[in-house]
Amino acid sequence: MSTKQLINGGAFLIYTADSESVFTPEDYTEDQLLIRASVREFLDREIEPIKDVFDTKEGTKIAPEKLELLGELGFLGLSVPEKFGGMGCDIKTDMAASEIMSDSFAFAQSMGVQRGLGINTILFYGTPEQQEKYLGGIIAGKIKCSYCLTEPGAGSDANSGKTKATLSADGKHYILNGQKMWITNAGFADVFSVFCKIDGDENLSCLIVEKAWGVTLGAEEDKMGIHGSSTRQVFFEDVKVPVENLLGERNKGFKIAMNALNLGRLFIGIAGSGISKRAFKLGVTYANQRVQFNQTIASYGAIQEKIAKMAVSIYALESSWNRLAGDMDTMYDVFMSETSNELLSKQKVAQEYATECAIIKVFGSEVEQFVVDESLQIHGGMGYSNESDISVLYRNIRGNRIYEGTNEINRLLIPGTILKLAFKGKIPLMEEVMKTFGDLQAGNLKPADPTVSFADFSLEFLDNCKKVAQLVCGQAMQKFQQDIEKEQEVLSRLSDIISQVYILESVVLRSIKNKSHQTELREAITSIFIYESAKILNDAAQEVIYASAAPEMALMSFKAIKKLIQLPAEHIIEKRRVVAKHFIEENKYKL
Amino acid sequence: MSTKQLINGGAFLIYTADSESVFTPEDYTEDQLLIRASVREFLDREIEPIKDVFDTKEGTKIAPEKLELLGELGFLGLSVPEKFGGMGCDIKTDMAASEIMSDSFAFAQSMGVQRGLGINTILFYGTPEQQEKYLGGIIAGKIKCSYCLTEPGAGSDANSGKTKATLSADGKHYILNGQKMWITNAGFADVFSVFCKIDGDENLSCLIVEKAWGVTLGAEEDKMGIHGSSTRQVFFEDVKVPVENLLGERNKGFKIAMNALNLGRLFIGIAGSGISKRAFKLGVTYANQRVQFNQTIASYGAIQEKIAKMAVSIYALESSWNRLAGDMDTMYDVFMSETSNELLSKQKVAQEYATECAIIKVFGSEVEQFVVDESLQIHGGMGYSNESDISVLYRNIRGNRIYEGTNEINRLLIPGTILKLAFKGKIPLMEEVMKTFGDLQAGNLKPADPTVSFADFSLEFLDNCKKVAQLVCGQAMQKFQQDIEKEQEVLSRLSDIISQVYILESVVLRSIKNKSHQTELREAITSIFIYESAKILNDAAQEVIYASAAPEMALMSFKAIKKLIQLPAEHIIEKRRVVAKHFIEENKYKL
Repeated sequence: MSTKQLINGGAFLIYTADSESVFTPEDYTEDQLLIRASVREFLDREIEPIKDVFDTKEGTKIAPEKLELLGELGFLGLSVPEKFGGMGCDIKTDMAASEIMSDSFAFAQSMGVQRGLGINTILFYGTPEQQEKYLGGIIAGKIKCSYCLTEPGAGSDANSGKTKATLSADGKHYILNGQKMWITNAGFADVFSVFCKIDGDENLSCLIVEKAWGVTLGAEEDKMGIHGSSTRQVFFEDVKVPVENLLGERNKGFKIAMNALNLGRLFIGIAGSGISKRAFKLGVTYANQRVQFNQTIASYGAIQEKIAKMAVSIYALESSWNRLAGDMDTMYDVFMSETSNELLSKQKVAQEYATECAIIKVFGSEVEQFVVDESLQIHGGMGYSNESDISVLYRNIRGNRIYEGTNEINRLLIPGTILKLAFKGKIPLMEEVMKTFGDLQAGNLKPADPTVSFADFSLEFLDNCKKVAQLVCGQAMQKFQQDIEKEQEVLSRLSDIISQVYILESVVLRSIKNKSHQTELREAITSIFIYESAKILNDAAQEVIYASAAPEMALMSFKAIKKLIQLPAEHIIEKRRVVAKHFIEENKYKL
Repeated sequence: MSTKQLINGGAFLIYTADSESVFTPEDYTEDQLLIRASVREFLDREIEPIKDVFDTKEGTKIAPEKLELLGELGFLGLSVPEKFGGMGCDIKTDMAASEIMSDSFAFAQSMGVQRGLGINTILFYGTPEQQEKYLGGIIAGKIKCSYCLTEPGAGSDANSGKTKATLSADGKHYILNGQKMWITNAGFADVFSVFCKIDGDENLSCLIVEKAWGVTLGAEEDKMGIHGSSTRQVFFEDVKVPVENLLGERNKGFKIAMNALNLGRLFIGIAGSGISKRAFKLGVTYANQRVQFNQTIASYGAIQEKIAKMAVSIYALESSWNRLAGDMDTMYDVFMSETSNELLSKQKVAQEYATECAIIKVFGSEVEQFVVDESLQIHGGMGYSNESDISVLYRNIRGNRIYEGTNEINRLLIPGTILKLAFKGKIPLMEEVMKTFGDLQAGNLKPADPTVSFADFSLEFLDNCKKVAQLVCGQAMQKFQQDIEKEQEVLSRLSDIISQVYILESVVLRSIKNKSHQTELREAITSIFIYESAKILNDAAQEVIYASAAPEMALMSFKAIKKLIQLPAEHIIEKRRVVAKHFIEENKYKL
């Protein structure tokens, strides 16, 4: 029963879902596949032939008309409930389409802001009048929108922004003054969601500001990549914004900003998946064509290893975000049954899975960096030429580890959120930690048994990884107590451990669910991922334990941890060759 | 006694040098410091003010005049013996100057080719007539030169090039036809060293070809970075080259190409050091200026960790290349005492230390990638702007892991060369392996003792790492025998182990030699590097052992290896903070 399998946000650290309950890419319905194909077909027709233009600032002039075409087809409002003029797709379908959309060079940015931050702020927080006035146009692509949070002095510390609004004497307008930077879509946006402080407020509010009211723009920024995505500074000098354009409540803008970012983070992670698949295909195709020493370079072990490592990371990434999208849909149904409010339920889902969204953001942007870099390396000298698509991708993606919360900030948020849930009693982490400590003292911790079936072995190993996470979190909490938020290095290591558990679980459950199909390949992929997970957990746990306990105690705890993640001797190089062989034959990322 | 301390190429895997015998950056003489300062002053005057131009193709038009200025000052011929018109500096001094020269954006490429591949081919292999005709002009910067090896179909497989020369009927000329690509300095070079096959030869020869004889050029390539460095295709259509312009012997061009690359690799690694220091300074300066949440971001642990990791890698890199340069000078004296031939001795030194040069190339280009990437990340959104120097560096350096032998090819060469030396009996690796195997079976292997002095502990750990390298090489050789060259993944892991031993030795010996100065800082840096080395050896050894032995035997061997590199529990996060503190105060890379 799926509701029984429902796991709350952050609770994956304690409970393991049933493999049948997780959503996997193999579960796409005909409708979902059709939407993906339609999006691809649109991009192949409208964007692919002019992809070079999107590597120049000329692209910013073409983006608006392409947004309109996309709007006409309904793709901008995929996730918007039908009664608000959208297609009413579930999250799974929306995300499945997003992965394809992200594979469209700089145009992806315009789409992303329009579909994500742009629509969601007004959809979730707008009054009926605001929705009436703007939402339909945005979904149709006729009104272009942008999201104005960052300022020169306010990046990670968004709340320190200096943009101010003052209520006019007649109480009818806010007079807006300030400056925003790194604003995507700024060059052609009609509507700006602007975060600012009203009068002497301590906290942010959000105003919907129309271009026509006197918004002025800086020049297009010279960026490393995504040149076809408009990015400018936006200036407000005594811009008069009608009071009815306050979005949500005064002083509550920070929550709007953060909630929009939860979904935004998920989108960035999923974009990592779409872009990695493109990069993978470019790399493997090149390796299959390029001949050196009378053989294709794909026939060499050093290249096969790269192909295998790329494929395994993509498998892990798509396992994780699809699973999360599935869980979000399930949780949405629960919230709907409680509230009967579609928008509220969507918002609550995004909040519920804030940690998981952050995990996908960090992992997705890092997988993407890894895959694009390795694919470029396979291209040799050609990879360094601007004429190769892979070099464009290399420049385009470098911001993804920076925006929507740097990966460093997200690495603080991930354990931060989990520990808060634990302190509040929303997940029984403390109880579990005590149990695992008890097991440790009783000598009850043992490695996963390699003699059972592969599925059972994987689950045992996963369970042991959770125990490692619990032990390590427990030891760190005990040592640092409330001061743990100052221990950023410890938090970052906890983040790596917690994230790895989530991703590993997604890999294991997906492989089990689909184990009758391509068994050898899936087992090889899963084994490799297990092997890499053990290394990541080992290294991260070591630093936390050594920082949290006196040397003798630390050595003992760490010994137990090493035992938990101990693996049988495996010819991992051979497994990578198995994986590489499959994808070299496919000549792209395809299971 | 320094000659007693002399360690042949590749022999570092067996012997450890005395710390007093290694050359370290702390040993720079007043003269060496003066040359570095003069180069810096030249760059600050001539290049720094127009660095933006060197991020455009306009730079290719300015580079020639700057080369001439550099030639006038004698900097192009630093390493050339005085009787050939150079400054006659030793290798240490030449390399110390090179590090500074490399920190000059795209101009560094023009200088590098002129000083390295350009001069060295003709200096080492030219006839007196060829030297008379070209060398003085090249050293003076009046004749610009380039090096033409790569072709569209011949990259790593250089010998497969299709460029052909045919002896003319009167025997006076070679008629040259073919196409080269990725040729640095092509746009303004007067002289091209062209690798080609003469008549039906199986192997390459090298011709000195003057531009004026009918060489034609492609357009400037659009590259990801180093736009100010001229890179073009070069075409030869029935170009008549006088037979006296054959460089070295016919059919022996491959050796010329490879020898030039040995030193070229060292230069790239050293460039990694110079560029990393620039990137480091940009990052730490930004971190000291940027305030978020009312503190400079340099005050946060997550940033301090980055600063420490960057600093430790730079320390390791500069320790390694300075030590190598010192060893090369010592070995040069030995060869000189045997041959009294300066050029022959220089060539022999480059061959002797081919492995070490490859190690520095791989490590230097990877440290540089790491440091530039992390520094960019510290910059946040600004790092993604083309207006930041760090974003220029990010684009500029991406080729360094590709040219002069991809890092993948170099990773095959490193153990390949060592194993060849061992098979030929030039280094007693087999004997040492047997001894270590014996120790393993007798249970005589034990971890380094943490209770002795830090210097002794470090040396013991280093010695244990050599034992690990020996065990792993031995097991792989036993398993794969002559077929080991097909096992690229295994070779790549061996390369990582062997390289780490060399770099670790350089770090340890430098820290011991200078232990009375900044003791705490040096011990922290060395501890961190030891800690990272243990992880690298652990992971690489595991893959090799599991690929080379049956599971049970593999587990036993690997257990012994883990014992050898076992370390006491250390609060590594705290050590990183110690390192970060120093460099945050210095606001740049300075010990």
